[in-house]
Order: sequence, then C-alpha cells, then structure tokens
Amino acid sequence: MSSIFEGSKLKVSIFGESHGEAIGVTIDGFPTGFEIDFDFIRIMMNKRKTNNSELSSSRNENDELNIISGTFQGKTTGAPICCIIYNNDKRSSDYEKIKTTPRPSHSDYPAHLKYKGFNDYRGAGHFSGRLTAGLVFAGALCMSMLQKRHFIKIESNIKSIHGIEGDEAMKKEILSAKDSKDSVGGIIESHVLNMPAGIGEPWFDSIESRLSHMIFSIPSVKGIEFGTGFNFASMYGSEANDQYYIDDKDKISTYTNHNGGILGGLSNGMPIVFRTCIKPTPSIAKEQKTINITNLTNERIIIEGRHDPCIVYRVLPVIDCATAIVILDFLLNK
Amino acid sequence: MSSIFEGSKLKVSIFGESHGEAIGVTIDGFPTGFEIDFDFIRIMMNKRKTNNSELSSSRNENDELNIISGTFQGKTTGAPICCIIYNNDKRSSDYEKIKTTPRPSHSDYPAHLKYKGFNDYRGAGHFSGRLTAGLVFAGALCMSMLQKRHFIKIESNIKSIHGIEGDEAMKKEILSAKDSKDSVGGIIESHVLNMPAGIGEPWFDSIESRLSHMIFSIPSVKGIEFGTGFNFASMYGSEANDQYYIDDKDKISTYTNHNGGILGGLSNGMPIVFRTCIKPTPSIAKEQKTINITNLTNERIIIEGRHDPCIVYRVLPVIDCATAIVILDFLLNK
Amino acid sequence: MSSIFEGSKLKVSIFGESHGEAIGVTIDGFPTGFEIDFDFIRIMMNKRKTNNSELSSSRNENDELNIISGTFQGKTTGAPICCIIYNNDKRSSDYEKIKTTPRPSHSDYPAHLKYKGFNDYRGAGHFSGRLTAGLVFAGALCMSMLQKRHFIKIESNIKSIHGIEGDEAMKKEILSAKDSKDSVGGIIESHVLNMPAGIGEPWFDSIESRLSHMIFSIPSVKGIEFGTGFNFASMYGSEANDQYYIDDKDKISTYTNHNGGILGGLSNGMPIVFRTCIKPTPSIAKEQKTINITNLTNERIIIEGRHDPCIVYRVLPVIDCATAIVILDFLLNK
Amino acid sequence: MSSIFEGSKLKVSIFGESHGEAIGVTIDGFPTGFEIDFDFIRIMMNKRKTNNSELSSSRNENDELNIISGTFQGKTTGAPICCIIYNNDKRSSDYEKIKTTPRPSHSDYPAHLKYKGFNDYRGAGHFSGRLTAGLVFAGALCMSMLQKRHFIKIESNIKSIHGIEGDEAMKKEILSAKDSKDSVGGIIESHVLNMPAGIGEPWFDSIESRLSHMIFSIPSVKGIEFGTGFNFASMYGSEANDQYYIDDKDKISTYTNHNGGILGGLSNGMPIVFRTCIKPTPSIAKEQKTINITNLTNERIIIEGRHDPCIVYRVLPVIDCATAIVILDFLLNK
Repeated sequence: MSSIFEGSKLKVSIFGESHGEAIGVTIDGFPTGFEIDFDFIRIMMNKRKTNNSELSSSRNENDELNIISGTFQGKTTGAPICCIIYNNDKRSSDYEKIKTTPRPSHSDYPAHLKYKGFNDYRGAGHFSGRLTAGLVFAGALCMSMLQKRHFIKIESNIKSIHGIEGDEAMKKEILSAKDSKDSVGGIIESHVLNMPAGIGEPWFDSIESRLSHMIFSIPSVKGIEFGTGFNFASMYGSEANDQYYIDDKDKISTYTNHNGGILGGLSNGMPIVFRTCIKPTPSIAKEQKTINITNLTNERIIIEGRHDPCIVYRVLPVIDCATAIVILDFLLNK
Repeated sequence: MSSIFEGSKLKVSIFGESHGEAIGVTIDGFPTGFEIDFDFIRIMMNKRKTNNSELSSSRNENDELNIISGTFQGKTTGAPICCIIYNNDKRSSDYEKIKTTPRPSHSDYPAHLKYKGFNDYRGAGHFSGRLTAGLVFAGALCMSMLQKRHFIKIESNIKSIHGIEGDEAMKKEILSAKDSKDSVGGIIESHVLNMPAGIGEPWFDSIESRLSHMIFSIPSVKGIEFGTGFNFASMYGSEANDQYYIDDKDKISTYTNHNGGILGGLSNGMPIVFRTCIKPTPSIAKEQKTINITNLTNERIIIEGRHDPCIVYRVLPVIDCATAIVILDFLLNK
Repeated sequence: MSSIFEGSKLKVSIFGESHGEAIGVTIDGFPTGFEIDFDFIRIMMNKRKTNNSELSSSRNENDELNIISGTFQGKTTGAPICCIIYNNDKRSSDYEKIKTTPRPSHSDYPAHLKYKGFNDYRGAGHFSGRLTAGLVFAGALCMSMLQKRHFIKIESNIKSIHGIEGDEAMKKEILSAKDSKDSVGGIIESHVLNMPAGIGEPWFDSIESRLSHMIFSIPSVKGIEFGTGFNFASMYGSEANDQYYIDDKDKISTYTNHNGGILGGLSNGMPIVFRTCIKPTPSIAKEQKTINITNLTNERIIIEGRHDPCIVYRVLPVIDCATAIVILDFLLNK
Repeated sequence: MSSIFEGSKLKVSIFGESHGEAIGVTIDGFPTGFEIDFDFIRIMMNKRKTNNSELSSSRNENDELNIISGTFQGKTTGAPICCIIYNNDKRSSDYEKIKTTPRPSHSDYPAHLKYKGFNDYRGAGHFSGRLTAGLVFAGALCMSMLQKRHFIKIESNIKSIHGIEGDEAMKKEILSAKDSKDSVGGIIESHVLNMPAGIGEPWFDSIESRLSHMIFSIPSVKGIEFGTGFNFASMYGSEANDQYYIDDKDKISTYTNHNGGILGGLSNGMPIVFRTCIKPTPSIAKEQKTINITNLTNERIIIEGRHDPCIVYRVLPVIDCATAIVILDFLLNK
C-alpha cells in the first residue's frame, strides 16, 4: 500500500513518474456536496511549483489540473476524485547516466535493488518530488474544507535555512549555496489552529503517529518534533507540564503549550504545533563519489539536469496539504 | 484501529487498562515453527518493569506471561499468539481524585472528552504506559526472530537525561529530580544493525513513516529524527550526502551515514539510526494548577500514587521492541 | 489479517485453538457508554453451545466469559473489549491419529501444508468451530446495541435440513443421520429488520460484499444468496424489479423485495434478506478413505471423538451474531 | 474504502462515472518486470464491451487504454499502474428524468439518499457497470501473470440464461426477452485450474470470503456458491465429503470435488469452482411503477436510453478478471 495513504475515511492514492506521461492522485472518501475552490487549490499548487526564480529549478510545468471524476455540477459527489497532471517539460535524456551510477543520498540505489532494475530511474521515477503535486491537490481540497466547514486553519512557515533565520538572510544563503554548486536544507514550523479537543486515537493512531507517518512520506524530511520537541529532554516535569486554567470565556486552556496540542495522542484544544527538518537537496552540481552498480567499480558523478539549491520553500505547501489530509481524516472519523 | 498496529503481515493488538483485570496483546501473522525464547523475552520484560530501585515507581508487578494461544509443543503455529498479563498490584483508590481534575500533560482531559466520561480514568486506564508490557512481549518475540533468522540486531542506548550525558551523572540527575518532587526526560538513540538494502516502500510506507508511526505510539515520545536528523538543516548538500564506494569485500557502502540507512523510504544497507525524545514524566508530586471539568473551576492538584521520576530507562526496551515489530514486518513482506 | 475482521470502525479479532488453553476475542472500536446485557449475550452463547441433547456433540463446555478489558462500572469504555473463554473439556488424545491422516472435507490437509506441519492439529486447532464462541460474544454485543440504539433486529431461522422442512421432520432427519453414523446440512434464512435506507458503499464495500465476506468466514458455509438469489436467474426483469410506491405513512416502499433490501450495494429500506447453505458436518463415524501425508500411502479413517450429526442449529446464532457485527459497523460508519 | 479493493498486496482502485469525462483504475502492488500482454488485455476488454450485436446495448465505446504510469520500456516497474479510459459516447440527456424518479432495482434511490442528492445520477454515475472496464483491465493483467508465472488458468462459462441451457437456446431466450421489452439473467460457472494447495487464510480471509467479497462488488450479482454449493444442504456427510487418495503420480487428490477446491478457507489442490447468479438487467423498456422522491408522489417510468436485454455475457469476463485479482493477491502473499 506504499502509494496509498490509508486514513480512516480518506484514502489518497498517488501515481506517476517524474518523466512518464503524467502524475496524478485519487481521493476516496471525500464528503459529498463540497464546492471545489479552484482558486485556493491553484494558489497551493503554485507555491509548490518551480517558479523559475533564481531560487529553484528551471523545470517548467504548468501543472494543469484534469479532474476526471468525482465532481458533478462543480461539487464533489462522494465518489473518488481523480486528478491527472500531465508531464510536459520532460528531458529524460538528462538521466541516462544515473541508470548505473546512483546519485548519493537519492533513492536510486535502494530502488534499483527493490525493483530488480525495472524501475523508471529517470529523475527518480515514482520516487520523484514531482508526485507531491498530486498530494498538494488532494491536500488543498482538504484544507479548503477544513477552513470552510470546520474553521480550522493550517499554517506553516520557514524557521531557518542552513541554520540562518530571517527572510532576506535565508534567500542570500540559498543563492550562496547555488553559486558554490551546493544545496541547503532547513526547518519548517507548522500550526493547526482552532483544533477541537478530544480528537485522535490512543496508541497506534495517535495524532503524532499519523501526522509523522504522513510527513515522513514527503521526500527529504528527516525529523519531526511536536510542541517543545527535543527540548523536552532538557526540562523538568514541573516546567514541561502544561497546567490548566479556565479562561474568561469559560474555556479550558493551558498556560503553556509544550505538548503542541496533543496529549495521549489526542488533541487538547490548544494549537497543534510541529517542526519538520528538511535535508539539503541531494542533487548538487559538485563532483561526488559513487559506484557503478553493474561493474562494482568506484566512479565519480556530476549531476546534470535541473535542480533546486533549496527545496524548503517548495516543501512548505506540501507539508500544509499533507497535514490537512490527516487532520480532515481525523475529523471525518469523529 | 487505534489499538491495533497494522503492518503488512503482522497485526499487533493491545488491550487492557492500568487498573483493570489484565492487560494483553495478540500477534497475528507471526511465522510458523519458531521456538519462543522465553529467557530473552523475560530479559526484555524485566528491563521495562518497575524495578523497585530508587529510580523508578514502587508499583510491583511480576508481569507473568500467560500465552493462551498460537503455540504448540513450544513453537509458534502461525495462528494468533495471545498473551495475557494480569494486574496484581492495583491501587485504584489512588486515582479517584483525577476523575474530575485532570493531571497536567496527561491524557486525562482529552480522553474524558473523547469517551464522554465513560473511560476508565484510573491510572490513565487504556492510555497507561503499563500497556507497553504487551508491546514488549510482542516485540521481544520479533527481535528474537530478527536475530535468529535474519541476523539483524536492534540496540538502543540513552544519549542523555535532562541534557546530561554519562551513566553516573544521569542517575544523579534523576535522583536530584526525585528529591525535588520533580521529573526529567531524555534522548534515546537506536540502531538497527545488519539491515539488508532495498527493503521498505516509497511514499506512505517509507521506513521512516512506519517507524515514526510506531514510535509515536509509545507514551511520552515527542520527537524523532533519522540519521543526522535536525542537524541536516544546518549542513550543505556536499557535506550531507552519503557518497558511495565499493569496500574490499565488494560490498557497496557509504563513507558517511547521515541518512541513517534510509533513502527514499528504503534501506540502503547501512545501519538504521534514529533518536527519540522522551518528555519528563508528567506525574510529579509538586502542586500543579488544574481545573475541575465538571464545575469549570480552577483547582490545584498534588498527584499521589506511585510514579517514576524518569521513565527513559523503561522506555528504552519498549523502543527496541516496537522497532523490531516494524522491521520484522518489512522483512516478512519482502 | 486472517483472524481479524476489519470493518470500517469495528475490528474483531479471534484467537485460540480447540484444545489449547483458551479461545477468545477482542473488539476494537466499539462505542463508549453502552451497558452490556449479559443475559442477552448468555442466551446467544447458549444457542451456539453444545447442549448435550441427542442432536449435538457431547463435548461439554460452560463457556464462562472472562471480560478482561474495555468495560468500567458495567459499561463499555471505548477501549478494546477482550473476552477470554477457557477450554475445560479437552480430550486431545482423541486427535493424535489425524496428525498424519487428514480427515476428508476438513482443513487438516491444507492447514498442514500452509503451516508446514507446525499447526495445532488437535480438533482442527485454530480452524475449529469452537472459535465461533468468540464471534458470538462480539456479535451478541453488537446485536444488543443494534436493537437498543438503532432499533434494528436480526433474525435467522432454519429453512430446511437435508432438504426437509418442518421442525419435527428436520429433527427426525438429524437423528436418522446420527443412527447411520452420518451427518446432514441445511439452509438458514436471515432477516435484518428496520434497516434504514442509504447505508452501505458502492463497489468493494457493498453490503453483499461485506456480509458474504463475513458469512463465509464461518466454517461449513458454502453458499450465500441475497433476496431472491439464484432464482433471479430464471426471472424476467419485469418480474424481478422491485417497483416503488409511497405507502400511507408517506414512506417509500417497494411492492416486492426480490433484491433483499440491497441495491447497488446500498440498503433501500426494505428488510435485508439472505440465505446461507451449511454443508453436512465433515466429521462422521463411518469409515472413509484418506491418505498418510508422511508416507504418501492410501489409508482408511474412522473419526472418533465427539461430533455433531448436524451443526445447522449451532451455526444459526453464529450467523445472527456475525451479521450484527457487519451491520453495526456500517451504521457506525454512517 | 468503497472503491478500493484492498488485497494483501494488490490494491485496485476504480474511479469515474458513466457519463463523466473518463473512468479508470489504479493497481498498486503489482510485481515488477512483467511484460504487459496488450493482445490478451484487449481480448478481455472486448468481451466486456458492448458489441453492437442484437444481444447488447447500442452504446459504442472503443475503450482505448491510456496507461499513464507504472510501466517503463514495456514492463511493469512495481509502481502504481494507472489506466484511464475516456467516455466518448455519452448521451447524458437521456438520464435527466431519473434525477427525481428512481429506476426500480437500480442504485438510484439509495444512492440519492447516501450522497444527499449530490451524486452524478446520469446512467448510475459511479455505480455504473461501465466502471467494470477498469476492473477488467486490472484483472486481465493479473490473469496474464497467473498464466505465465504461476500456470494458473481461470475460465468461466454461462450455465444458463433465464433457466435455459445451450448456446442457441440461450441466445433465442435473450432475443425473445428483448422483443417483449424485457430482460433476463443467468448463472455463470467459474473454474480456477492448477491452483496449488495450502494457499489462503483461515477465518476472515478464507478464499471463499475474499472471492465472494470481490464477486459481489460486480453489479447485478445476487448469489454465489462454491463447489456443490446449495446442493450440499440435501446431501449426507458420507456423500459430500471429498475422500483422499494418492494418484499414480504420487499426488494427493480427492475422488470428488464437492468443496470446490477449498477447505477451511484454504486451497486443497483441486480446481476452485464457484457459480454466480446474475439478476435480469433492471433497465427495461416496459412501463414500471416508481415514485417522485421530491414530491413523494407515485409515478410511472419508461426507461429510455440504451440498455442490454441480458448482461450475463458481458459480466462473464468481469468475473474472470475479478477472480484473477483475488487469486493473484493470495499467491503474492504466500
């Protein structure tokens, strides 16, 4: 079930390859009668897209959405919604070299083993970040429903790039990495606002379990922490505990939110907060050591083709949308 | 499916409450003909158990294992293995107070909402860490098979307690916290050794996805990072990439292991490495602010009963065992 | 997931062996705050039990229910409900012979292959009809909730035994089979009354799909038909179609119910009706031809031990209870 | 998960509507390196297609296959295979009338309730038999692999139409029904040849459970029986039991195959045999009684549009292909 997200109600299945004919997504279990907000979806899709700026890859895809099922007279029908996005700007010849010489820190080598050499290796094939376009379509639909029907908002922002904070400084850092044919990663912080209390499940379907499961499905994510996260390890219980009080609207609240809105796997009514670590883009123009998997010889590789010096900006909307799928699924299962 | 871990082949279901009659676990899909190594399981169970030392709670359970199905003539049959562990040292009267005044940073408040007040609140009921005894039984069985049939070893160790490293210093830190009626957390590092390459799935069943899903099921875990983890965010791609070489036994290896043995969700043949953050035990003897959920008034609480000033030592074997379930499931699905 | 029924909300897992220590069941996802009606459950359990009459086996089990989790102060908590039923009247020596000489029409031979000889072969082990006691416990709980919260009633009756209708005649037929060391089967008809319209799912989760999946899990079931069933094959569309009308209470109804209450996999508000065929008990005292699976020689077998000349009466409550699990799951998922 | 078949390894998801832009299917978990036999798939697709003969509907779709993912250089890659089939011959205006006046014995009325009126009602929308084209594509791929890699053959034939046997007589019966603006159903018998013994699972994943689950997903199926099926109910155990012998090639065999190749949910090495009952096509040109669901008045309906007097011929390849998905999934899980 590798390419199907199996929520309680929502099943989101992605398919396609970076340099195949198309990529796409099917959403099963989406509620009926919801008017699709194409403007909102387009905004999220555009955030994810290569924007031809200096900061990202020069691959140019317009990501036109072809919704071929599940809607009728502008509204969702309750049947599976399938959306196809064609690949237009393919240049698969760029990738012939990686057939036998796997790119360091990419899926190339283990994918070759797993699929016995039959996988589409061009641009990482089915493992390509390009497939997150399908995830963004599905998730933007969920985000939109969360906002309109449940008044829940999801917002992520970039905390740091290459350890540097501040918008201008971060951009400079990326350009500097690009100049030296290198790449950088960063940290994204996400907030789910207006989450009702008492949602979630104990044990194997805790909110942390399901959210982390989803977030680690996004390429290049290597860490996640909820609330105060790894800093909990240096605190006393008396500092870390989120003590309760009744606020002036008779709402139960906590003075602090170290637990990031989740206790025992369930929401406690405070904002859900988590941070995700994105590793530096593995595709860099610098020469690297690799091997020839057929001859078992040591080799050198310079990765050509188009790649981003930093993908953190593009991962940001993917995290928002992926989060929306998980949160909506929890709410639908209530 | 909150209390069932749904692997591809292995389904592990836990049940029971802290102060009910018993807790237990059922393992569905375990291979046939495996001789159960009770000594090994006992060792893992004892590591998790309250050991009456100064470092842990004074609840005293012998955790006797009652395997009531799935074995015949000392070997697994392929049918579900059910193991019941009775609760002997129950003192549920300790918990009457928390019925209406939820303990800060515990599941009490959201569980009360979710279950409309019908949940067994005594000692967190079904949310209690006591249920991890079942997880340890199931996981120790899996660990044992990983070692004997697949030559895979799982090892965890404590990196730090309350930010402090070093065995003696860590113990001192715990006792000091205990003296001040407080608690501390820490960081555990885990290694899966001898993992074959090419195991795992892309996207929604990446090794990181499934492992994090499982690990966040363990109470008090608030963060996980793979390989270099959050430090990736401050590195250049050229530093972070794990470059390949052929070693002298013609084995494909990488110079570094920043990715913690996982690329594109698949194992690459290097050790799987991850770190888990455990928050300080929420149960502390210090007075804390809380509320009365019936009257909606502000209250104070001093948590009585028996609790650990630090549960990191006890979580350690749980993480080993939980990891074993996920890894064995991946291998069985190969 | 062979021993776990995976509904949308309800997961029912059975475990145990005929001549092991115990059998049992765990129900995950059952709603919170429901008072368990032990009298009703006991009635259903007794219907399934061997009753020492001339019509059934002489194995005598009291089937005492040990509910070890998931209830608190007499009500369900929302946590998994585990019920253990110990095996008291074991006589496993009866079964040593079948280790190498499989009983015709039993699971012995394919189970031996599947489990590589490690399965518990005594009395069919995990395949034994005895495990339906767990299914009856779980299902009786669901039946009880369907009645009290949803006003839905499930009723089955025996249409025929060995092709014969009429209570007295059927009993005579069974005794006559018993006298000649033989066995007989029969047909059970089931009704789900007061089922609301618009429940179910299209395609792979049609009511027929899920009900048949469940019903074929019951040992000895070899056929199922909904509504008019196989007789549809001899009708014209104009006869078979269930035409609509508005009844005097403004309720939408159909003149006939050939479709057994299900259209396109969804309930249409008419009673759900299906018939199930139960094969004759394979255990008969007559000499039969079999083989020795070790020596690959032809053999003869006379099955000793205790067995029923007809299990249709005992299957009846199992079908009711199994149906209740599926129907309640559909309603909980609404 | 209504529109996703969830096997152990194979997940087959169908999407689309009868008069929407397209229908399609995604197959997740299909093995790698398999050369797609388009000729074979085309043959199966054509069997299902309306053939413009007197026996079937006049809707004319060429069912061109657009495989947009999961293959590379003519072979399967192990990534999800998505196939889109566009709807060309749409005449949705035919269906405007059924919006408020549901056709008897169709999904129209319960689907309207379930989807709160937002479902695409044109030609039954997502419930349309047209979606079986996707199932046939997926299943033909599986059939082809079963034959080439596992030497397993699946064959179905029509036993009777409207109670009549014999090819010529059956065709005459259909034309006669057509002449009287009526429709007829029939019975299909299916055989899975060369099935190895010891495949399957006990209880909730018995071969009967999974096959019936799948077969009842096919529109118009109202009954299924395995082996001797409902006739078991009139037999003695001594007649019904399949006694064993060693054949001259030292192969374990049974004298009879009343159990249709399945014991205890597992294959026993004999051919798997089952029969399926197909109800008469509900769409008939005769006037029928129905209701107006908005006004709650009694109405009459004459169904226009194109429909088949008998769909049994077209269901035949769907059953073969659906069976192939289930059987391959069992084998892949071995």
